[in-house]
Amino acid sequence: MPDHGSTTVFLNVATGVGILSLRRATRADLPEIRGLLVDDDLGVTRESLDDLKPYEVAFDAIDSDPSHLLVVGQVGDDVVATLQLTFLPSLSRRGAWRAQIEAVRVSDSLRGNGIGTLMLQWALDQARRRGCSLVQLTTDKSRDGALRFYERLGFVASHEGLKLVWGSL
Amino acid sequence: MPDHGSTTVFLNVATGVGILSLRRATRADLPEIRGLLVDDDLGVTRESLDDLKPYEVAFDAIDSDPSHLLVVGQVGDDVVATLQLTFLPSLSRRGAWRAQIEAVRVSDSLRGNGIGTLMLQWALDQARRRGCSLVQLTTDKSRDGALRFYERLGFVASHEGLKLVWGSL
Repeated sequence: MPDHGSTTVFLNVATGVGILSLRRATRADLPEIRGLLVDDDLGVTRESLDDLKPYEVAFDAIDSDPSHLLVVGQVGDDVVATLQLTFLPSLSRRGAWRAQIEAVRVSDSLRGNGIGTLMLQWALDQARRRGCSLVQLTTDKSRDGALRFYERLGFVASHEGLKLVWGSL
Repeated sequence: MPDHGSTTVFLNVATGVGILSLRRATRADLPEIRGLLVDDDLGVTRESLDDLKPYEVAFDAIDSDPSHLLVVGQVGDDVVATLQLTFLPSLSRRGAWRAQIEAVRVSDSLRGNGIGTLMLQWALDQARRRGCSLVQLTTDKSRDGALRFYERLGFVASHEGLKLVWGSL
């Protein structure tokens, strides 16, 4: 079992499946985070199971930049959820700081226990504390239920989310 | 006229309205950039004309972080276009770097001269050179023509773009 002893715990909260700890991700979490990314209708074709190295390189880039906060949710010994929270300065809207949420995943087997909601509510709270005027994210139009999930949290689908992807990823 | 002598010029290209210079924005550009943000159906209610300070604070945050590149397009003495290009590390898609484009504006009076296309093509080129696997942006659903503009450049509207905005901005 990875040693998470030295990480920052943001939140401990009771859920129907046990105590959920939200904490800063560590390098030791990468295999489990990758597991969450792979175990996904879209991720299954996009992620690599044979080589952890690209994830380690990306982790170091994220972890070394205070603009980013990579978070995992842990229940018992298992990493069951993850998201990446990013703080972005911008000129528009009177020089507003924006929070951006990427790569939200909750373990399939634990869906419906409010873990995603708790994690997002925590992220919204962080964004407010950091002085952000808005929080933004995109969700693939093929993800059933995701749009309603975010709308229940107060998000408005006011924008088209466009991607230009090179190669097969 | 602001002195832009010491800025980095990325591109000089002929257009129907003169030579377009794409260059790194400077603090001296802020009044003109704000002008572009205000002179916009959505921006008119969101931006401030009486106080430049919040834009200066935001500019310094953007300009001091190498993850961001704030760009202006200049024709003659006038700043006629702007965008913000950001490079973001992520774990998903095998640890892909993402380029993100925000706050794209072209002066109303110069629309239809290909300035937006040139600026976006430059941004896509930068993203490739920096090793990004994808470029992402969102566009307000009320912006007529913007979706088709981005689709012509190769973007796919695969995602919903969600915002949660606090206050009136």
